[in-house]
Amino acid sequence: MSFSAEEQLRELKKGSVDLISETELVAKLKESAAKNKPLRIKAGFDPSRPDLHLGHTVLLNKMRQFQRLGHQVIFLIGDFTAMIGDPSGKNQTRPPLTEDECVENAKTYARQVYKVLDSTKTEVAYNSTWFKKMSTADFIRLSSQYTVARMLERDDFANRFRERTPISIHEFLYPLVQGYDSVALRADVELGGTDQRFNLLVGREIQKSYGVAQQCVLTVPILEGLDGVQKMSKSLNNYIGVEDSPKDMFGKTMRVSDELMIRYYELLTDITTDEMTKLKQDLASGARHPRDVKVALAKSLVTRFHSATDADRAEEEFKRIFAAGGLPDEMPIFDLNAAEFSGGAVGICQLLVRLNLAASNGEGRRSIDGRAVEVNGERVADPKLQVPLKSGDEFVVRSGKKKFAKVRVK
Amino acid sequence: MSFSAEEQLRELKKGSVDLISETELVAKLKESAAKNKPLRIKAGFDPSRPDLHLGHTVLLNKMRQFQRLGHQVIFLIGDFTAMIGDPSGKNQTRPPLTEDECVENAKTYARQVYKVLDSTKTEVAYNSTWFKKMSTADFIRLSSQYTVARMLERDDFANRFRERTPISIHEFLYPLVQGYDSVALRADVELGGTDQRFNLLVGREIQKSYGVAQQCVLTVPILEGLDGVQKMSKSLNNYIGVEDSPKDMFGKTMRVSDELMIRYYELLTDITTDEMTKLKQDLASGARHPRDVKVALAKSLVTRFHSATDADRAEEEFKRIFAAGGLPDEMPIFDLNAAEFSGGAVGICQLLVRLNLAASNGEGRRSIDGRAVEVNGERVADPKLQVPLKSGDEFVVRSGKKKFAKVRVK
Repeated sequence: MSFSAEEQLRELKKGSVDLISETELVAKLKESAAKNKPLRIKAGFDPSRPDLHLGHTVLLNKMRQFQRLGHQVIFLIGDFTAMIGDPSGKNQTRPPLTEDECVENAKTYARQVYKVLDSTKTEVAYNSTWFKKMSTADFIRLSSQYTVARMLERDDFANRFRERTPISIHEFLYPLVQGYDSVALRADVELGGTDQRFNLLVGREIQKSYGVAQQCVLTVPILEGLDGVQKMSKSLNNYIGVEDSPKDMFGKTMRVSDELMIRYYELLTDITTDEMTKLKQDLASGARHPRDVKVALAKSLVTRFHSATDADRAEEEFKRIFAAGGLPDEMPIFDLNAAEFSGGAVGICQLLVRLNLAASNGEGRRSIDGRAVEVNGERVADPKLQVPLKSGDEFVVRSGKKKFAKVRVK
Repeated sequence: MSFSAEEQLRELKKGSVDLISETELVAKLKESAAKNKPLRIKAGFDPSRPDLHLGHTVLLNKMRQFQRLGHQVIFLIGDFTAMIGDPSGKNQTRPPLTEDECVENAKTYARQVYKVLDSTKTEVAYNSTWFKKMSTADFIRLSSQYTVARMLERDDFANRFRERTPISIHEFLYPLVQGYDSVALRADVELGGTDQRFNLLVGREIQKSYGVAQQCVLTVPILEGLDGVQKMSKSLNNYIGVEDSPKDMFGKTMRVSDELMIRYYELLTDITTDEMTKLKQDLASGARHPRDVKVALAKSLVTRFHSATDADRAEEEFKRIFAAGGLPDEMPIFDLNAAEFSGGAVGICQLLVRLNLAASNGEGRRSIDGRAVEVNGERVADPKLQVPLKSGDEFVVRSGKKKFAKVRVK
């Protein structure tokens, strides 16, 4: 730990949203340095959804930052609650997991998170460890440490209560479970997305009730998905998965808007404040072209989650398909529903008409005969070609020099 | 079980308030008769307050009624919750009990309740039996069976929530605990005071969630205390204790108003509907004097909780003290605070002045000298007599033929 508390603080605040409280964190950092005792940094993960996307890596990056500063990171798997699930059965998206599934999902997690975290500096914990041992009487005592009114201050509870959407009582218990995890782990800092702010603060209260030192709370932003509007999530299909292929990762990154590109730089790379200032200046002055900056972003992501070689190869492939043809930065997007088309495919001529790239099947056929039609950069020779439509796929159709359309298959 | 379902229903409804639902209870009674299988009748008791007063016996009478009809009564001791108490520490009147204290208090209960219940037909259960075995995970599942909004419908919760008086989350769990008791006991009917209505109905819901037959709910009125206004309670000192001496029990009963006497007849004796009609007629017509009716009530209570001999003796003693002197049915009541008087006693002359029985100490002394002053029917000879003031005591002071005052010591 060769950094002063102030230096560490500056680094840790970068890209974060809430810090409760700065004074407390500085004190903890100083004490840690003085006693040569790493701080315990907690971050909780839901084992029922172990497929990580880049949205999750914002948090992982912050954890790695703590590791680099010499602190002890705890990757907490919330298996206790995951094994209970939503027993009221109202939330069908969160079915209870078996113990085997938890173990399996924990492995899936490990495979992914160690692309960011240093495995030798990561402590993995399962909250079932302490909750399996806790008696119901002790659990009721835990539940006495918080009030109904304060729980109803949480935004989503407040909204549901106002709108008379049922809240099962066990939902009030889960934030307490999460809070008690901080007692059991003796967490000095808990990290989470801004949507976790309330729960992380409950942890401070519960620690106080149990007479242990209170954790600091540090939140990171929620990453926007590829659409630049909604939260990145698998169910919205606007994500880049940590285990996406180099080609997909590169291609998806290249398709984000210039504005979102800046956001991804901030939240997904190690760019420093000074470098970011310079980058913005260069883009504004035209010293750098947005597409080159995007390529650099895409390569840095592929490098982190695969390798530098994979990044080079993905760049070459991408350029081979698109760059030669002068793919525009922006093009119309068409959402097609695979279910609409029998056999899970569509004839190329019918597709050209659907995408406004031809006025009729006949015109489409003539364009193909004139060698003017490409799908994802590959020329179409057969006017009877069936283009497969697989849900989640994206591809670009081109007709002539200037007419493009992007297809997203639902 | 020689009574038809309809006969049983008529008997059971007598003196009850809520029955949810009559149709269900009739069906249960019929099935019970057909299968020759007694219904399981649950009533829960708080072991942290084992001193019973007549208010509690309203419920015990209803339990005894079920016993007489051949059903199985379960005296449930809520030791699980009593051993947790109010862990938030906000309710100082309910400190947690140790296991030993629970056992001790259960014995105290037994000694008292078997003055009403038939011990051979009473099953005693402790809810710690099942809750000690329940895992925290199962407890969370239990808590998922009810919603926050519905819990906030309970009157006291609704009021506290509106008035921003904190409600700890564990308070939401206790009705669920009580409800689950009905699952564990497979209760067919749960009895309680009207103030328990909400909790008893929660039991029905929880049973449904757990796939067992739903209990019927039967509530009995809350008995007014000796003041005729507030709920009978030890803390308000307006109670007749189950273990009060025959003399106290008789004396306290004799001091209730004529109106309250009728209420006590209804709720504390086995009087039938026909007998009650007759009694009211006789009082209205003057065929019976209220004081005689009150004596009969007092004797019936002493007989139940002590013996017929004790009742006769209490009556004689009461008459020896009061009747000779022609104690009026109504007299002014003075509340004295023992702490106001040094030495825990008051001089008789000062007392006479205080009670408006003498204009001055001098007049008081002259009355005593004239052999006109009595305390509880005993003539006072010494004008320097110190009358002891012990908190909770009541006594009657008389001066001359027609001047009386009742003293209640606080």
